[in-house]
Amino acid sequence: MKAGMFMSIRIGIFGYGNLGRGIESAIRQNPDMELVAFFTRRDPASLVTKTPEVPVYHIDNVLNFKNDIDVMILCGGSATDLPVQTPNLARHFCVVDSFDTHASIPEHFNAVDKAAAEGEKTAMISVGWDPGMFSLNRLYAGAILPEGKDYTFWGKGVSQGHSDAIRRIEGVLDAKQYTIPVEEALTAVRSGAEPSLSTRQKHTRECYVVAEDGADLDRIRRDICEMPNYFADYDTTVHFISREELIRDHSGIPHGGFVIRTGKTGLNKENSHVIEYSLKLDSNPEFTASVIVTFARAVYRLYNEGCYGCKTVFDVPPALLSPLSAEELRKKLL
Amino acid sequence: MKAGMFMSIRIGIFGYGNLGRGIESAIRQNPDMELVAFFTRRDPASLVTKTPEVPVYHIDNVLNFKNDIDVMILCGGSATDLPVQTPNLARHFCVVDSFDTHASIPEHFNAVDKAAAEGEKTAMISVGWDPGMFSLNRLYAGAILPEGKDYTFWGKGVSQGHSDAIRRIEGVLDAKQYTIPVEEALTAVRSGAEPSLSTRQKHTRECYVVAEDGADLDRIRRDICEMPNYFADYDTTVHFISREELIRDHSGIPHGGFVIRTGKTGLNKENSHVIEYSLKLDSNPEFTASVIVTFARAVYRLYNEGCYGCKTVFDVPPALLSPLSAEELRKKLL
Repeated sequence: MKAGMFMSIRIGIFGYGNLGRGIESAIRQNPDMELVAFFTRRDPASLVTKTPEVPVYHIDNVLNFKNDIDVMILCGGSATDLPVQTPNLARHFCVVDSFDTHASIPEHFNAVDKAAAEGEKTAMISVGWDPGMFSLNRLYAGAILPEGKDYTFWGKGVSQGHSDAIRRIEGVLDAKQYTIPVEEALTAVRSGAEPSLSTRQKHTRECYVVAEDGADLDRIRRDICEMPNYFADYDTTVHFISREELIRDHSGIPHGGFVIRTGKTGLNKENSHVIEYSLKLDSNPEFTASVIVTFARAVYRLYNEGCYGCKTVFDVPPALLSPLSAEELRKKLL
Repeated sequence: MKAGMFMSIRIGIFGYGNLGRGIESAIRQNPDMELVAFFTRRDPASLVTKTPEVPVYHIDNVLNFKNDIDVMILCGGSATDLPVQTPNLARHFCVVDSFDTHASIPEHFNAVDKAAAEGEKTAMISVGWDPGMFSLNRLYAGAILPEGKDYTFWGKGVSQGHSDAIRRIEGVLDAKQYTIPVEEALTAVRSGAEPSLSTRQKHTRECYVVAEDGADLDRIRRDICEMPNYFADYDTTVHFISREELIRDHSGIPHGGFVIRTGKTGLNKENSHVIEYSLKLDSNPEFTASVIVTFARAVYRLYNEGCYGCKTVFDVPPALLSPLSAEELRKKLL
């Protein structure tokens, strides 16, 4: 539980699902960080981690570790966990979360900011790739090309929410849903034509479904394709496959996407420009974790500079993300 | 010469070539900025700008305007202008330059930092897209995927330096050179294979040359293709065309490129990820100018916060680049 001789950043993982496992793995790739504790809602004795030498505690005991953890990384869900956990913990720890309910970010920010400011801690919310790296790219590109339009496409990737929605349909044993950007829409956007694209024109949805023996496949297909919000506004394809095929071909959690801004410059707006940022990720939670760990480094540094309160990726000077010194960065990367 | 009622940022343009004209145009796209003066080495009376209502002064008189300009944008060249001008002016003005001699950045930084710190001004060097936005993307991607490799490709775009080198060959009247990334190399990089690529494997060079009547075309072609540093290490194609064709088809200054980082995550490095940033620009100087103007906003804000000395794009919290407030950014872009 002691900091290493190089004063490594001591990280706690709060919640051990896919994202928590991603953090556990990402910390090993960053020599200036040290994983010092897991916290779980479950019986700590029952939790089997990939790092057995690091202790597991019940979340009820977390305040005993205020002096042992530099940054607590919250790995719960945005629906019910983080709105409660992040403000609660931000009063006592420097924290990072990946809160991703875009519409509720201002409210979440205010709650976390108040707690962190009162506790004189540094918090950062909504870290990952969207919100996160995609947000940063929307900001940079929009500032550089004020007269233009930006587009965000997601995929090809697994949507956990849509997969869950299919699994709740009667007769469905298991399912996986991929969100896929429409190639023609990407091409139209990159042309600089600034097209207006409907929901249906931007993405398609592809579903791999394991049905119960004897289930009414037509009815299941209809239930999926007509589901409001989730599928009704999209061109949706449903494939019925066996459980073995689902496990063999669809066990990964890939994702990715594109942020594209096109805009014009020149006295007569005669020149067009395309700025494009894209991600192609084998593992959504592991990449999200890698982003979070990087920003945890910045949180630690901001805290040591006395910058308290809630921050977002927009507030971080990029140099704070890197283990390299400012001199090295200028010499090697500028 | 007065600030507008909304306290716009008062910009001076120091040097009126392609970049200076780009700045002139970009300022019109940013309502919080105001162009207040041009400075030129030429006879001010002879300078015809696109904004005749803004006065033109000789650079020798620049210190008379210390209180009238919030940020001076230096539009000279990296070879001989900026190494002298930026430190000299940074003592008296907040400045931004686009110094792009990568190997000399540390030395230039130190000179500008000393001057700006002594003058209690804020300076920013090497702003543009490379160095600049490409550098930022190298930093972000490298911090997120510490185990990986990154690649920068340039083009398709016009290289002024290479075009000039061809023009100096005997028998050449005019020329334009395009740097072109090799598609197979891009594909190999995106695969995550982390290939080792030679100079020749990454880019090709395509030259459009107007030769004198009766010139020895084979000798010119050989002089180009065998030119050390510029062409000898590349697969180079030379097309001889008429002056009319050169003007008709090759008058633009397009450019662009790709920064790609691939890396692995997972306890057994079993997952690969690709982060790609790309630019496709109709006008290299106008896009560079758009980036510079954006960072000039940040320089103005850093100065008002009392952050003196020399900065780079790595030091700027992205929120400072946008005219939107922190609340709006979180609500609309995060």
